[in-house]
Amino acid sequence: MMMEIPVATRERSELVDVTSLVSKAVSQSGMTSGVVTLFVPHTTAGVTINENADPSVKGDMLRGLAEIAPADRGFYRHAEGNSDAHIKASLVGFSEHIIVKDGRLVLGTWQGIYFVEFDGPRSRRLFIKLQPD
Amino acid sequence: MMMEIPVATRERSELVDVTSLVSKAVSQSGMTSGVVTLFVPHTTAGVTINENADPSVKGDMLRGLAEIAPADRGFYRHAEGNSDAHIKASLVGFSEHIIVKDGRLVLGTWQGIYFVEFDGPRSRRLFIKLQPD
Amino acid sequence: MMMEIPVATRERSELVDVTSLVSKAVSQSGMTSGVVTLFVPHTTAGVTINENADPSVKGDMLRGLAEIAPADRGFYRHAEGNSDAHIKASLVGFSEHIIVKDGRLVLGTWQGIYFVEFDGPRSRRLFIKLQPD
Repeated sequence: MMMEIPVATRERSELVDVTSLVSKAVSQSGMTSGVVTLFVPHTTAGVTINENADPSVKGDMLRGLAEIAPADRGFYRHAEGNSDAHIKASLVGFSEHIIVKDGRLVLGTWQGIYFVEFDGPRSRRLFIKLQPD
Repeated sequence: MMMEIPVATRERSELVDVTSLVSKAVSQSGMTSGVVTLFVPHTTAGVTINENADPSVKGDMLRGLAEIAPADRGFYRHAEGNSDAHIKASLVGFSEHIIVKDGRLVLGTWQGIYFVEFDGPRSRRLFIKLQPD
Repeated sequence: MMMEIPVATRERSELVDVTSLVSKAVSQSGMTSGVVTLFVPHTTAGVTINENADPSVKGDMLRGLAEIAPADRGFYRHAEGNSDAHIKASLVGFSEHIIVKDGRLVLGTWQGIYFVEFDGPRSRRLFIKLQPD
């Protein structure tokens, strides 16, 4: 089964916590054991895992990624001006995989699942694929 | 079922579009629903998703990655001289996962699948593993 | 089936070879064909693939990553002082996927599987999820 959830982003770069959306999708499916694959069908956004406690970690991650792939490299030739977003999306990745056990996502204590926008604000989508055992 | 496809690269760093190869493998298998896992059995090449429209995005990504992990760091000790390729491969990743629905790859409008060479030219391989529902 | 293996790290940044542990888990399970998903339930550690031959590649990778996400950026605000570790973990990723065929991990000749510590030393865990065909 594949589900599709809309994600509305509000900033150019932003981490959107989607943990509860994914958790709800698993609960509603009735799946008790297996793997959930999350997939981002875009080229300037990704999905990752990050700390769900101190919100300053989100800002540090976005500022760190902006240093790693700056927006204004002189050598960029792509006319849309969002090459940094393409690079950051490939670094962070387009899919994430969470194990499901006893009907629940098996995440570490401090882990949250984040949709990562690098070229917003936009209306985005996140695909959720369930693979029951 | 696991398939193995050869990928010939022509440059030291290169993005090779493998979307149609993966799509064909899925069609030929007869799988209608599930997940395709792509796996690169190398340590200096990876696989990612990127824009399939403007070809300048590929160059921008390779130039951006070359800034992130330069080829000539004074602190590299690996005698083969390709430590940058090992780093870039780990950043981009060795696997990619595409959902299959109604017998087709579920990709976003602008998404293509790219084998990423970081230490070519070489004869490489890409593994395709089908996991039908 | 999901297994959980403890990983003890000894340095702040370290690549721990877990290939034989994963291989043994697959053998013991009796699974002959499918996919193994590895998942790191932490936010400052990840999992990747790297060369299993020249040990200097491990050092080069850790030094390269330390340049990419330095420990002492002036703009970090997270009070724990480990924002670099969060960034590096998201870049390297929290999961890895290995195909299993004829009862064995299908890895390339030079590939080893590495748990990647970015904020050790700590007692860590690695989850191994088997998805037989």
